[in-house]
This record gives sequence, C-alpha cells and structure tokens, in this order.
Amino acid sequence: MDNDLILLGHGSGGKLSHRLLSDLVLPILSGVPASGQNDAALITHNGQKFAFTTDSYVVDPIFFPGGNIGSLAVNGTINDIAMMGARPLYMSVGLIMEEGFSRSELKTILDTMREAADKAGVAIVTGDTKVVPRGKADKIFINTSGVGVIEHQLVIGGNRAQPGDKILINGAIGDHGITILAQREGLDLVSDIQSDCAALNDLTFEILKEGEAVHVLRDPTRGGVATTLKEIALQSQVGMILDESSLPYNDAVKGVCAILGLDPLYVANEGKLLLIVAPQAAEAALERMKAHPLGRQSAIIGEVTEDTRGRVEINAISGGTRAVEMLAGEQLPRIC
Amino acid sequence: MDNDLILLGHGSGGKLSHRLLSDLVLPILSGVPASGQNDAALITHNGQKFAFTTDSYVVDPIFFPGGNIGSLAVNGTINDIAMMGARPLYMSVGLIMEEGFSRSELKTILDTMREAADKAGVAIVTGDTKVVPRGKADKIFINTSGVGVIEHQLVIGGNRAQPGDKILINGAIGDHGITILAQREGLDLVSDIQSDCAALNDLTFEILKEGEAVHVLRDPTRGGVATTLKEIALQSQVGMILDESSLPYNDAVKGVCAILGLDPLYVANEGKLLLIVAPQAAEAALERMKAHPLGRQSAIIGEVTEDTRGRVEINAISGGTRAVEMLAGEQLPRIC
Repeated sequence: MDNDLILLGHGSGGKLSHRLLSDLVLPILSGVPASGQNDAALITHNGQKFAFTTDSYVVDPIFFPGGNIGSLAVNGTINDIAMMGARPLYMSVGLIMEEGFSRSELKTILDTMREAADKAGVAIVTGDTKVVPRGKADKIFINTSGVGVIEHQLVIGGNRAQPGDKILINGAIGDHGITILAQREGLDLVSDIQSDCAALNDLTFEILKEGEAVHVLRDPTRGGVATTLKEIALQSQVGMILDESSLPYNDAVKGVCAILGLDPLYVANEGKLLLIVAPQAAEAALERMKAHPLGRQSAIIGEVTEDTRGRVEINAISGGTRAVEMLAGEQLPRIC
Repeated sequence: MDNDLILLGHGSGGKLSHRLLSDLVLPILSGVPASGQNDAALITHNGQKFAFTTDSYVVDPIFFPGGNIGSLAVNGTINDIAMMGARPLYMSVGLIMEEGFSRSELKTILDTMREAADKAGVAIVTGDTKVVPRGKADKIFINTSGVGVIEHQLVIGGNRAQPGDKILINGAIGDHGITILAQREGLDLVSDIQSDCAALNDLTFEILKEGEAVHVLRDPTRGGVATTLKEIALQSQVGMILDESSLPYNDAVKGVCAILGLDPLYVANEGKLLLIVAPQAAEAALERMKAHPLGRQSAIIGEVTEDTRGRVEINAISGGTRAVEMLAGEQLPRIC
C-alpha cells in the first residue's frame, strides 16, 4: 500500500480519518484547543459565543427514500451546530456540479434545501456555484457551512463525559446508512425503511432544559454510534459500557445487516443524537426526548465508566462483552 | 441545446451564471434583499454586523505559479469578506478529495492554507474531509467559508455607485487567468507572469479610511473586470465609461491575449479589487492604494455616468467606444 495516497477510508469518519485529521488537517486550525474537537468550532466575539461549522456532502445516490443530498446538507449542518448546544441561524450553500447535470434535479434539490432550512428556522444567506467538465465530479456535491449562537452558560463537549453518566439515543440506529446502501444496490427487501435525515435543533433545545446535567451531545453520522462513542470516550478519558438489548433498531435494518454481515453500530445516522447526561437527570431527559416527535423511540443505551484509556464495551445479548472500536477502513463510501 | 442541462458556462460568473442564480439559487436564500447581491451576506446579531461568505474552489491545475488551490481558497474567501468592508476573522475548510490523491500534495496545500490565513490574520477554526472513489472528482476541491466583522458605519455595496464616481483598480488585469491558462496549455512564453492571488483585507482597510466616499468594493474574479463592472452598473442603475489607455496590464498578459484572441477584461483576477469612490476622494484613494504593496500599479480607469440601464462603455485606444457586456459562455473553465 502506497502510504502517500488518500484512500476512501480517509473519508469514512473512522480510524483512517482520525489519523489524517491529526497528521495533516488539525495543524492548520488555529485557536482551537485539541481537546475541543467537536462538530463545530466555538468562537467568541464581544462576549457573544457562536458555533461555526462546515460539511461537504457527496452522497450517492443523490435522491433516496427520506430525503436527498439537499435536505442532508441542510440538516447535517444544522445538527453539527445543534450538537454544540447552539441555536442555528445562518447557512451558506456551495454547489459543485458536473457539466450536464439536470437543472430540474437541481431545482428539486434546492427547493428541498429551502424547505428544510425554513422548517428548522435557519436562513440560507449566501451561496456559490461552480461547474466542472463532465467526468470531473459526480452529478453534484454540496457544501453547507453554518453559524449559530450559544445562548446559555452550559459547557458541553466531547471531553465532558464523566463516570456514572448515562448514554441516551433518540431512536433507531442505522436507518440512513442502510437506506443508502439498499438504494445503491437495488435491494427491494428494505422498501419499508427510509433515511432518518432530520434537523435536531428543536430536540436539543428540549434536552438543554436539563441544564448542567447535559455533558455531551453528538450526532453519530459517518462511522456510526460505535465510532462516535469511542471518540467521546477517548476525548473524555473515560470508559463506556453499552447494553446491546437496549439498542433500538428497525427490523429492516437488523435484517439487512444480518444478511450482509454489517454491524449496524458502524452504520451512519442523519437524524440521531447521542446524549451523555448526569445519572440523576437521565430519566427526565428520556421523558423529554420521548415527548418530542424525533424522540419517540429514545432509550438509555449504556453508561460511562471509569477508564482512562477510552475503552468502550458492549454487553452482548448472547452473553459476554465485546470491545467497540472505531470504524476501520470504509464500510459504505459516500454515505453523506 | 437541452435546456435542462447544466453547462460549463453556468459556472463562469457571466451571463449564464446570473440566469441560473436568479432562476434557481437566489430563491432559496432568505432574508437577503435582491439589491444586496454582494460577495458576502450581511448579517446582524445583537447590533453587531457580520459578513458571511462561501466559495468552492475547483481550479485546474491545482498548483500554478504564484499559488495553489489552497492559497486561492483562503485568499478568495478573505477577499469576499473584505469587499464588504469587513474584517475577516474565522474560516472553515471543506475538502473533497479523489481516492488516490497524493497525501504529500495535500500536505503542501494545507500548509499553504495555514500560511495564507496566518498572513492575513484569519483563523481557520473548523473543517471537514470527504473522499470519493477514483474518477468521481478531480484530485481535490476545497470549500472555504468565512466570517468577518464590520466595525464601521459605512454603507458599501454593488448598488451604491453614483454618477460622477471614479472607478479604480489596484493593479494589472488578468494575471491569474492567463497564468492558469498558460500552465494548463504548457505555454512557455509566459513564464514571467504569475497569479496575483493575494489577500486584500489589509488594502481595503487602507481604502476604508476614505470613509463615506467609498461606495463599492468588488473583486473581479470569474468573468473579470468587464463582468464585474457590468454587474455593478446594473445593480446601481448607472452607466460607466472606461478609458482603455488607463487600464494596467502586464506585457505578458497582453501578448497572450493578443495571440489567443482573448479580451483580458474578461479574464479572472485573484488579487485585484475595483473601488468606486466619490470623485473628490479619488486622488487620495489612489495615493493610499499606491502606497500599499498590493497597489503599486493602481489606476483610475473610468467613471460612473448617468444611465438607468446599466450601460458600460469603453473609450478604445484605437478611437471610438465599444460596449462592455457580461461574459457570455465560458472562456476558461475551472479558473478558481
């Protein structure tokens, strides 16, 4: 393997991504403490705290059950801001299109973006359009960057998980990734699942009512729940123990994963969040989440343990425990 | 011609781009008055005015005399903010790479980005990395979005040009576009020119000392000086008359354009700004610009006239006048 080449796995959100980030990308960031590796940057201007984030979307196919690349791009960036406990306000849209891409598909995508932004109360305020010759891109890539304001004094971040904290999720795991996979491979058997693509800012607003008990908010997108929890465990220097029987799945996702030999814990989600909260607030947070349309299937899925090496384990339904690691390599390229 | 297809010209910054923007892209923007079509969006939060902008860079080749896709991406976004009269502060970086792209080239590009950002006093605070399979992108595309603060009470914008105003530029026209063209076509004859790629925020800071006399600041990138002035004329509902003999060019650019039949007024610049200023302040502005390292060759190149239809004309050296229109079609794809 030529070590000088960028591999698909470098974009997976897993181990290779982490290494690339540490080696090459993080050194160009300034003013960001390494411990602050979160979904968005925290910036302060004249005493006002802002969250600022960017994401490029290269999902294939661009249309799928439950959304398209446009709704994904809007909701994904809203969620990165929401996971900072911030209120998303403004968004930019950067389009890179391949010559010959369909104007009517573009219109559908842009309409969806406006709709998704309106629904979440976010204004798309600036944009850019580039076109490259046929064969130099694949249909359309969309970058969205966003700015939100932080209107509370809470300190939330991937390095704030504490032993004893409870780990919650707001619903079924793996829907987005399996929907994309099924669409790409033409698997008819899963016609009853769709992407969970959704804006989570209203749900996080509810959760933040738990105040200082809220320690971590993170959306398990690329790399899935497993990679995201492992990241947090390493950042916080804690361990975690998950209870497999409490993990919410839709049957179709379980079925496809069983057939294809995939572990749904590594499959991407686009409308899910992981909440790590002080134990005494866990039940109240769960109730708030269940009362929200995007949290009906919420569950407490595990807890934070004492372990300085960031070990994450799962109590298997079949008995025994197994270790949870970051995604190695690339399971599903171009999932978002 | 199939009207449903996106053409290369839709990314040129010229006529086709404008039509696509008006038809499809601008309708998704909210809270932005149409008259405010500038390089960046103006947003106000708690009385503090910010500029927010995004640009994706797809330049081919990615390395060229005077810079690379990284310095272009950093300086281009800084300039969009600076043209709003804002002080650029924070930037995001979104990378889309093709599988198999060189890690060492990536490192060079990222190092250049950090260097360019440091030089301009801007912090890169957040980023995103995506990888697509070989053949689904061309080496690397970079999105940069940026946030700046507006620390003055001036009203600057493309709709503020007034009859009698003077039009200034800070130096030679067409260097970036011709450098890219020469590099791409292997033209040895132009080995003595290089891209003018540079951050203009320090120069605009000097110019803003002219206070209320400053009406428009705009960087003539895609579509060149001609398209940019035509845009401003339409936005401000004024005319313009340029003096061809006052337009600053480097000899190599003039030579290449003559040989290839290109009009340098339509060629992209990456370190130039057009300033439209009240007549009584023009000489002082010119002196300030000439005193700046990025403005040695500054010149007054024309003036704003009364004409509600946005007519831009040029007094040709050869005698007579000719009309200046927006770039039609695509002259040089992937120039930035």
